Amino acid sequence: MSQEKQDQISVTFPDKTVRTFSSGISGFEIAASISPRLAKEALSITYNEQILDLGRPVFENGSIKINTWETEEGKQTFWHSTAHLLAEAVEALYPGVKLGIGPAIENGFYYDIDFGDHAITAAELPVIEKKMIELARAKSTFTRREIAKAEAVAYYKEKNDPYKIELLNDLDDGTITFYTQGNFTDLCRGPHIPNTEKVKAVKLLNLAGAYWRGNSDNKQLTRIYGISFPKQKMLDEYLNMLEEAKKRDHKKLGKELGLYMIDSMIGSGLPVWLPNGTVLRRTLEAFLRDEQISRGYQEVITPHIANLNLYKTSGHYPYYADSQYDPIKVDDEEYMLKPMNCPHHHRIYSRSMRSYRELPIRLSEFGTVYRYEQSGELNGLSRVRGFTQDDAHIYCTTDQLKDEIKSCIDLTQYVFSVFDMPVDIRLSFRDENSEKFGGDTSLWDRAQREIREVADELNLDYTIAEGEASFYGPKIDFIIRDAIGRKWQLGTVQLDYVMPERFDLTYMGSDNQKHRPVIIHRAPFGSMERFTSILIEHFAGNFPLWLSPLQVAILPISEQYNEAAEAYAREMKEKGIRVHTDTRSEQIGLKIREAEKAKTPYMLILGDREIQNKTVSVRKHKIGDIGTFAFDEYLNKLTDEIRLKKLPV
Amino acid sequence: MSQEKQDQISVTFPDKTVRTFSSGISGFEIAASISPRLAKEALSITYNEQILDLGRPVFENGSIKINTWETEEGKQTFWHSTAHLLAEAVEALYPGVKLGIGPAIENGFYYDIDFGDHAITAAELPVIEKKMIELARAKSTFTRREIAKAEAVAYYKEKNDPYKIELLNDLDDGTITFYTQGNFTDLCRGPHIPNTEKVKAVKLLNLAGAYWRGNSDNKQLTRIYGISFPKQKMLDEYLNMLEEAKKRDHKKLGKELGLYMIDSMIGSGLPVWLPNGTVLRRTLEAFLRDEQISRGYQEVITPHIANLNLYKTSGHYPYYADSQYDPIKVDDEEYMLKPMNCPHHHRIYSRSMRSYRELPIRLSEFGTVYRYEQSGELNGLSRVRGFTQDDAHIYCTTDQLKDEIKSCIDLTQYVFSVFDMPVDIRLSFRDENSEKFGGDTSLWDRAQREIREVADELNLDYTIAEGEASFYGPKIDFIIRDAIGRKWQLGTVQLDYVMPERFDLTYMGSDNQKHRPVIIHRAPFGSMERFTSILIEHFAGNFPLWLSPLQVAILPISEQYNEAAEAYAREMKEKGIRVHTDTRSEQIGLKIREAEKAKTPYMLILGDREIQNKTVSVRKHKIGDIGTFAFDEYLNKLTDEIRLKKLPV
Repeated sequence: MSQEKQDQISVTFPDKTVRTFSSGISGFEIAASISPRLAKEALSITYNEQILDLGRPVFENGSIKINTWETEEGKQTFWHSTAHLLAEAVEALYPGVKLGIGPAIENGFYYDIDFGDHAITAAELPVIEKKMIELARAKSTFTRREIAKAEAVAYYKEKNDPYKIELLNDLDDGTITFYTQGNFTDLCRGPHIPNTEKVKAVKLLNLAGAYWRGNSDNKQLTRIYGISFPKQKMLDEYLNMLEEAKKRDHKKLGKELGLYMIDSMIGSGLPVWLPNGTVLRRTLEAFLRDEQISRGYQEVITPHIANLNLYKTSGHYPYYADSQYDPIKVDDEEYMLKPMNCPHHHRIYSRSMRSYRELPIRLSEFGTVYRYEQSGELNGLSRVRGFTQDDAHIYCTTDQLKDEIKSCIDLTQYVFSVFDMPVDIRLSFRDENSEKFGGDTSLWDRAQREIREVADELNLDYTIAEGEASFYGPKIDFIIRDAIGRKWQLGTVQLDYVMPERFDLTYMGSDNQKHRPVIIHRAPFGSMERFTSILIEHFAGNFPLWLSPLQVAILPISEQYNEAAEAYAREMKEKGIRVHTDTRSEQIGLKIREAEKAKTPYMLILGDREIQNKTVSVRKHKIGDIGTFAFDEYLNKLTDEIRLKKLPV
Repeated sequence: MSQEKQDQISVTFPDKTVRTFSSGISGFEIAASISPRLAKEALSITYNEQILDLGRPVFENGSIKINTWETEEGKQTFWHSTAHLLAEAVEALYPGVKLGIGPAIENGFYYDIDFGDHAITAAELPVIEKKMIELARAKSTFTRREIAKAEAVAYYKEKNDPYKIELLNDLDDGTITFYTQGNFTDLCRGPHIPNTEKVKAVKLLNLAGAYWRGNSDNKQLTRIYGISFPKQKMLDEYLNMLEEAKKRDHKKLGKELGLYMIDSMIGSGLPVWLPNGTVLRRTLEAFLRDEQISRGYQEVITPHIANLNLYKTSGHYPYYADSQYDPIKVDDEEYMLKPMNCPHHHRIYSRSMRSYRELPIRLSEFGTVYRYEQSGELNGLSRVRGFTQDDAHIYCTTDQLKDEIKSCIDLTQYVFSVFDMPVDIRLSFRDENSEKFGGDTSLWDRAQREIREVADELNLDYTIAEGEASFYGPKIDFIIRDAIGRKWQLGTVQLDYVMPERFDLTYMGSDNQKHRPVIIHRAPFGSMERFTSILIEHFAGNFPLWLSPLQVAILPISEQYNEAAEAYAREMKEKGIRVHTDTRSEQIGLKIREAEKAKTPYMLILGDREIQNKTVSVRKHKIGDIGTFAFDEYLNKLTDEIRLKKLPV
């Protein structure tokens, strides 16, 4: 390697500051030059888009990111290294096993292992975990070694591991590296954390069968899934969260609470909203519709099919054909199930010559779209083949853009605050060095500058993701956190300079000249289906009163009070309260238990005394008896709670 | 014809009474036996399902209907005879013309005529009308004559009319009849009115080109459309109605008022609801939804596509394949655009084992369905390829049927009363002699008896149409009359004994046995699209305040009052009133004219005096200035008018 090396290199940090270091400096040393703490927390670096071991020397100018546990890249490095620990532990405990592959995944890692004749059970996992922690505490460093292909093959022949040899066959000599920690060496591209001691807590989550290389003609190996953390407390929290998530699973609650069903005769991935779910959805829609109307949106309704020409004009066909259904022939034309509402709205915009006085025009629609998903990807309400977007398109002048973005952010933040969901904001900008972003560079720069100004003026705490913009413009992504700390990317606000060209959208300016409007695409919930799945899990089905499909159960303590109970119910219904009277000849205890199980927010127990005094004895879901109230007083309390969209206590 | 004839025949009247007459009696004589007035008004009879001249003798037992102007059959006879008068007049005025065909149509008649080299213009039509009236006043009788084919052909050869000869070629000898009135004879199956004098008023409405026998390879003849009446006053009323209908045309108003658009790029027959139309539709939906909720309906939402298996189970596929779109292939399955909501609801019903305690279950949906229509049939909002039904299915026990029917009728009558649309009711029953009606006869009989009992108990004025039931059960049809007297068949209430079998729907009875529920299909509006088209024309776009897309226009008399005007608007918006403030620097006269043209129900003129006193000067659409009110008083007036759904004055 006769490459001439520089003496000094320039390193650019994420905040654009540039510092000079001696060539050959390691990521660890660079981190240490900033602070000892950063050096301690660093797990790997990203250098010129490549993730490297902390100990690897760098010889060229470049941009650096120090990856700690707080970053996705840091976690991935950490979990990948833990997969090696898993393999080391298994080799120690089950001599002679043969190893497949062991990558990091979204949450944790796995390793595919051939246990030979041994049928491993879940009961053995704690033993492996213990061994892993023991090995981690041995503070072994991860050592990288470039190795000739022949030597690598010889190593695995000696070790008698056919899977690794098969992997080696696909690799070119000169690109092969081994990583070693303790007594274990693995064929691996890396990177890894510096030392095993960083792994303080490990949980092996489950076992599954996995065909070697995903091919069902091959042998089925045992896949062990696990996760690890730099602190025991983090693992405890994670396991609690998993337990909580299981209890809150929207598929389980969706069925129990009669919110939706998937019916095989109707079709996979096509949710049917049952009565309770429909109340929930209509209430969400009404909430957002009212907010939008007060912010100057106009609602429209467009058909669920359209001529293919519409999608050819937008460029969505054939570009996104993979996620679209096959065209339907109608007479001599071809129609397609609507995969998005945008082009329909653009046609509404261009229905007449628009004047600058009319702008901004804000067209909104609860528009149901259909997109193909592989059947294996379908999941309850969260991954479906038909869903309803809370869509809107804002057509405005460039001068109006900043105010409109501000208003979109404000709406989104307000909407999620009502559900007590904290929102993280990411500004997704174009990568200046990439060609994949369309349209006029000066427009992009102006838009990105304005988005940033808006974010600063609103005092937002945001991150910037370069290269994450959409093809047609920069965007703002909203990532919400649910009640058990999980993050979900929901609505976006996207700027679009491309569709106005494609659909030849114009407005007549005050200068009597035609101009192009800018389009903002936005959807706070994103999809009613997916948002509802998150909402179910966020509230564990214990919805705030205003969202509860049933708000009040009236439970007469015996049949003789049924008539009086129905009179109470009528009065409540007139106030728009969703109430049901349980007139069955069942014990009051059973009625209460069933109403509790159905997560009914309030139960009114009605007997002689209550009816004579026109009072109600109130039980609150999960809390129990909260006392006796005059009926009118209680009614006011209820309507207040609904009107103010109070959260459950 | 050696058929033995009876001396006496039994004749059954529509009210099931039977009377005996001498064989060979004519319809006229039978009518006269009832009353001289009926004999005078009779135009033809329907005898054993066949329409006959009033003068034709009848020789067999049979059921009779006397067709007067008040019946469809009577009108058809009348108009067909007028078509012959038209031909007679044209022959008299334009000797040498050649005649095609001249049938009655839904409203009036036409005759296709070859005028040779003469290019007739609309200016000539009054001359022909005058001639027709002159000929009618000659009191010529219509005389029927059976004629041998050879003689008929010889007649038209002599007359040199190639079209009639071509028609004769397709007819069998022994089936051919001529009708003659005055100097005109026509090849015709009949029947006709007895005498031309019944035709008192004629209007030839327009001219069109029509290829001979509808084939564009043939010569284009001139089609003259016309209509006629037994009284001049009726014609005057009809022409007024036509004039009114033209002004009210929903396609014209739909565009002017920004209610909907049909866009060629999106597709034919696929209406796009524009902002104003969406407000109208959402308001109608909310109105019906609230009514349904208070009547115990539960709303659901189902997808717009479904697996073909669903429609195979219901039997809709392949039975109705002509009106359905081609299946879409998804993986190994076939899906179809939803042509109806019923099977989806049946699947929701059968999602769990139902108890008699749960019934009736009333599932409602504003469900958008897609059905193929030929492009020539498409018409604005009234005939489309995708439409939203205000659909519901009620699953009940046979014991609950009567109450449920009553409730459906009550809802339908209430709904149309709100729009001031009188409703005629038709009970469509099975024809006992026809095989085309499915299911158990005793169930049919019980259902029809109960429908009738319900109708009587509700004191309804109804007609019974035998043979008009649907395949799966008897039904109730609602025919509404609009503001200019036109009739429209809208929602139906249909009983269904077939789908519970096909979908194996059951409930557990109090006897602990499984039973089949009955299904009621019902939809008061029928389709949101078609109903909206009728509503637009009914109100001529001058919607009641509660339905108006924009309810109030605030018109400051100059820009200095804009701010105060916006404050008024905010206060009104908080009350849910749809208000717009016209802040342009235009003259108040122009602002008023434009608001009038947009049919805005109220205009508030705001100047110095109004703002100082917190009053409003109110103009009402089509009426003008209605005075000055304290703002609060006016607000109360408005919210009352909306809440009570008052009709426009």
